[in-house]
Amino acid sequence: MGLIVQKFGGTSVGSVEKIQNAANRAIAEKQKGHQVVVVVSAMGKSTDELVGLAKAISDQPSKREMDMLLATGEQVTISLLSMALQEKGYDAVSYTGWQAGIRTEAVHGNARITDIDTSVLADQLEQGKIVIVAGFQGMTEDCEITTLGRGGSDTTAVALAAALKADKCDIYTDVPGVFTTDPRYVKSARKLAGISYDEMLELANLGAGVLHPRAVEFAKNYQVPLEVRSSTETEAGTLIEEESSMEQNLIVRGIAFEDQITRVTIYGLTGGLTTLSTIFTTLAKRNINVDIIIQTQAGDNQTGISFSVKTEDADQTVAVLEEYKDALEFEKIETESKLAKVSIVGSGMVSNPGVAAEMFAVLAEKNILIKMVSTSEIKVSTVVSENDMVKAVEALHDAFELSKHPSAVS
Amino acid sequence: MGLIVQKFGGTSVGSVEKIQNAANRAIAEKQKGHQVVVVVSAMGKSTDELVGLAKAISDQPSKREMDMLLATGEQVTISLLSMALQEKGYDAVSYTGWQAGIRTEAVHGNARITDIDTSVLADQLEQGKIVIVAGFQGMTEDCEITTLGRGGSDTTAVALAAALKADKCDIYTDVPGVFTTDPRYVKSARKLAGISYDEMLELANLGAGVLHPRAVEFAKNYQVPLEVRSSTETEAGTLIEEESSMEQNLIVRGIAFEDQITRVTIYGLTGGLTTLSTIFTTLAKRNINVDIIIQTQAGDNQTGISFSVKTEDADQTVAVLEEYKDALEFEKIETESKLAKVSIVGSGMVSNPGVAAEMFAVLAEKNILIKMVSTSEIKVSTVVSENDMVKAVEALHDAFELSKHPSAVS
Repeated sequence: MGLIVQKFGGTSVGSVEKIQNAANRAIAEKQKGHQVVVVVSAMGKSTDELVGLAKAISDQPSKREMDMLLATGEQVTISLLSMALQEKGYDAVSYTGWQAGIRTEAVHGNARITDIDTSVLADQLEQGKIVIVAGFQGMTEDCEITTLGRGGSDTTAVALAAALKADKCDIYTDVPGVFTTDPRYVKSARKLAGISYDEMLELANLGAGVLHPRAVEFAKNYQVPLEVRSSTETEAGTLIEEESSMEQNLIVRGIAFEDQITRVTIYGLTGGLTTLSTIFTTLAKRNINVDIIIQTQAGDNQTGISFSVKTEDADQTVAVLEEYKDALEFEKIETESKLAKVSIVGSGMVSNPGVAAEMFAVLAEKNILIKMVSTSEIKVSTVVSENDMVKAVEALHDAFELSKHPSAVS
Repeated sequence: MGLIVQKFGGTSVGSVEKIQNAANRAIAEKQKGHQVVVVVSAMGKSTDELVGLAKAISDQPSKREMDMLLATGEQVTISLLSMALQEKGYDAVSYTGWQAGIRTEAVHGNARITDIDTSVLADQLEQGKIVIVAGFQGMTEDCEITTLGRGGSDTTAVALAAALKADKCDIYTDVPGVFTTDPRYVKSARKLAGISYDEMLELANLGAGVLHPRAVEFAKNYQVPLEVRSSTETEAGTLIEEESSMEQNLIVRGIAFEDQITRVTIYGLTGGLTTLSTIFTTLAKRNINVDIIIQTQAGDNQTGISFSVKTEDADQTVAVLEEYKDALEFEKIETESKLAKVSIVGSGMVSNPGVAAEMFAVLAEKNILIKMVSTSEIKVSTVVSENDMVKAVEALHDAFELSKHPSAVS
């Protein structure tokens, strides 16, 4: 007998029928003899409706009151799911974040979990009940209601799994698992049977979108095995855990990509040692996320720098830099838009130095010009023209034989 | 400087515009230099929507989970009202029932308040904030969310006013105050300037409906002055407090009435001393509310009994009694429907023994047959034919000069 934490996102509890379906998933694990904790998000579009009400009253509603408002969404779902389980003859009990012992830092809208007092939950599980917990929310030391920000329900589920020493945390979602690449673009994309935390982190950060990076990091830190799986199909999903031995020799696990990238290049930087930190600190303060950064030595006292940002942030990026032109001491700024980032991810790379070279060769063969490169231990990212993006992904998916991979489930 | 508790019901916060209006009411008191606490209900039809979701899942959802579900309704309103006040430049902060220190007994769906820890609220008021509290809800010792049942938000407001030693509790509603009788039936009905707790209790119990009897009782016990007033008009409403001297000589304050009454008569009861208690205990267990009870001695060992019930409960009443016919030892049951109850209420009656006689004379003059009578210290109730109801109310309203009363506000 084990302990399973299940998490259902907003689309998986978006109607009475879907709530019934989630109840059946919980019952299936209960019938296997497991203890079951279910974490749920707010129903489908209900959060949007609440935000709409707030916006009708204030352009910038206080974050404390937004937390108060939004926390009602999950509270509705937990009570309905608990009723559905009881109607099906199972003993169930629902808890809000604060009732479930989820303590957070005193930050509204984006709080981090600091501690979980599992005594109430453990007691109810011991009594054989299916325990339902509201995701995305917690309480500060001062009894203030907080929310955890984007991906908050994933984080709640993983944190509860860690605190309760669960055997597994199942993330039910509207896709059947994690794919080698986005199947909407590449037909031969396959669902992965397994992937490591680090690989998932790279894929999540690169926009694969099924699981929030924060939750993956949490799972990695506490070694909680995760499974991403379909809330409508019963087939196995993708297991995320520390490297499994049978798959250690895989080099590339998946290919992530993202369009609407702009490259910003600053020429003739003559400032001193602190110039670089000044540039990126200034941009960070304006909430501009900089991704790939490349520095080039152009002359004795001149430095050039290129970095990529989301195209939607490009204008503001240039405006901010021009504002500080005197302090930063540079010659000029150029931007290039309509770019895309294509990345190969795989923990096998760390012991295979030729992977980046192979990637470049594949792209060259397809006449795709690489405009920027960035590497980490388990990832190689390239920036290419937006027009080349899908072609690049398809070529790399073929070249690294991702559709034939032993880890892929047909 | 005083402390004012305001309460806005569901229809008074049913839209963004109405929430803005409630905010303006709070600001008006704040600008006079008062400390202000605002208690709100769930927005308009939102409770019905939540109940609809629950009913789609279960015919008999657990009361605990219903409390969990319904408590979200007021939580939405408090956050929106707080945002509205902040948007208008006022410092406001919202609290759920449990955050506001409202402790209740461990009964779901209809809990009574056992204690209020006002420390958080008092602290925030001290800081000059307008404090918003979710009505209708509280928390048990075990941190379970409870709701207070019908009229719960009124009770929350009065209980908070008592605990905070407020100077006044204003109940904002969709009528301008308490009337001498229902103005939809009697054109000359007038709004009362003042009324005592006891009179209001009789009127509330008799269906006047603007204020829940439980809240009035609470206000009486803690001597909290209440004012029932319009949420849309600025005119004064009706003040409810312990008898005010200028009005002590009033005999009749108002006339309450209610149709769809059925009289049930049991003939030939031959059981012993315990028969009566058996009858009414049995009916109470089936949740049948019995109102007026009249016992008649018909012979040496035979007792007859008549009592009134709501017509909707009449069939079940007869069925229950027939079920226990052998134990109760009676001859037969007869019922008469299409009856109505008409009551005059006034605390002056206690020192004016002729009031009941005057009432009977007025009805006799109009050829209205009285079928049952019941009296209390401040009330005389008569049961008449449903067809005579409005005629009776009009005649009594005239005879006791309620439209000309010194306590009436034109």
